[in-house]
Amino acid sequence: MRYPNGKQYQKKETKKRKTSSDISLSAANRGMDLENDINESNEYYSEHDIALITKRPTPINIVKVDYSKGAKIVDAYFEKQSTTDYNGVYKGKYLDFEAKNTKNKTSFPLANITSHQIIHLKRVNQHGGIAFFIIAFESLNEVYLLDSSFVIHFYEKEKRKSIPYDVFKKEGILIKQGYHPRLHYIDAVEEKYFK
Amino acid sequence: MRYPNGKQYQKKETKKRKTSSDISLSAANRGMDLENDINESNEYYSEHDIALITKRPTPINIVKVDYSKGAKIVDAYFEKQSTTDYNGVYKGKYLDFEAKNTKNKTSFPLANITSHQIIHLKRVNQHGGIAFFIIAFESLNEVYLLDSSFVIHFYEKEKRKSIPYDVFKKEGILIKQGYHPRLHYIDAVEEKYFK
Repeated sequence: MRYPNGKQYQKKETKKRKTSSDISLSAANRGMDLENDINESNEYYSEHDIALITKRPTPINIVKVDYSKGAKIVDAYFEKQSTTDYNGVYKGKYLDFEAKNTKNKTSFPLANITSHQIIHLKRVNQHGGIAFFIIAFESLNEVYLLDSSFVIHFYEKEKRKSIPYDVFKKEGILIKQGYHPRLHYIDAVEEKYFK
Repeated sequence: MRYPNGKQYQKKETKKRKTSSDISLSAANRGMDLENDINESNEYYSEHDIALITKRPTPINIVKVDYSKGAKIVDAYFEKQSTTDYNGVYKGKYLDFEAKNTKNKTSFPLANITSHQIIHLKRVNQHGGIAFFIIAFESLNEVYLLDSSFVIHFYEKEKRKSIPYDVFKKEGILIKQGYHPRLHYIDAVEEKYFK
């Protein structure tokens, strides 16, 4: 994914230190731009008092800590997120979502969604929260908000390995892209859940 | 803090691996029981479809990863949480809170609360979320829910280094302790914010 002006994403100069989430993403070598775009959008939304959404740090399984060197972690591994990457508050309501991207043009593969995440999102719905996915079709330069119900449906009922692109066209909300915020996804939330 | 029956807290046998949050707590050597009690209460609330509250993993500043060994983290440090430890959803509303304990009997010291956390909680309030603290007075075996407004007030206006115990007695909600859940803190949330 690129900016509408065709420029590649550039890291903010103020961001000097890598966090666990940065590293895990670069390790996996996918979703980098989408994650960064959402993080930047969240900063914008927070600074402009529009919404407060935070990324959950990637959980890390720590094997060994060297306390002689001020609690230096010397042996640890990345763990899979058992919930979702993002949650927060908008107009008093609880939001919870997972962000994924694909190079596919005709469908979104469900291989990277875990059963734990599906259980988590069902629970969010059960408690009256708003649960959705942000899916980027990289090759099409399109990003959609899709309510979790569709993902749950395809995951559980259809036994399919992917959600067809047409479902996004018909049932999703196309997220407007811009400069600040990069992804106007709260506009999509407003359209889908508050109108 | 102990169970009402006087027994010490015992770790669940199923929990075999340490997570980053476990380690950071044992490193700091404080808040161990309170954090575990809240985590267990959250499990109870989730399994019984009462509320969905999750702990944010402790952020870790990763210095070096050895990719020759399957992304083994070989140099990393714990970072301070810039938001709060817990957030989630109850009856559709967004909840956000920090849990702390003290051995003091007459006041709760604010030394461990960061300005980032205060800013975060003010934003939660601004967006219509519910923001509070769970404070355990260990020596008294009392745990209180205190609305964030009081903590923000003492932090910003009073320039005090602590909140007197009397404020908790007068303005807080005493959290009932039990076996399952260990801390009936959602009852306190219900009483404070939903009645």
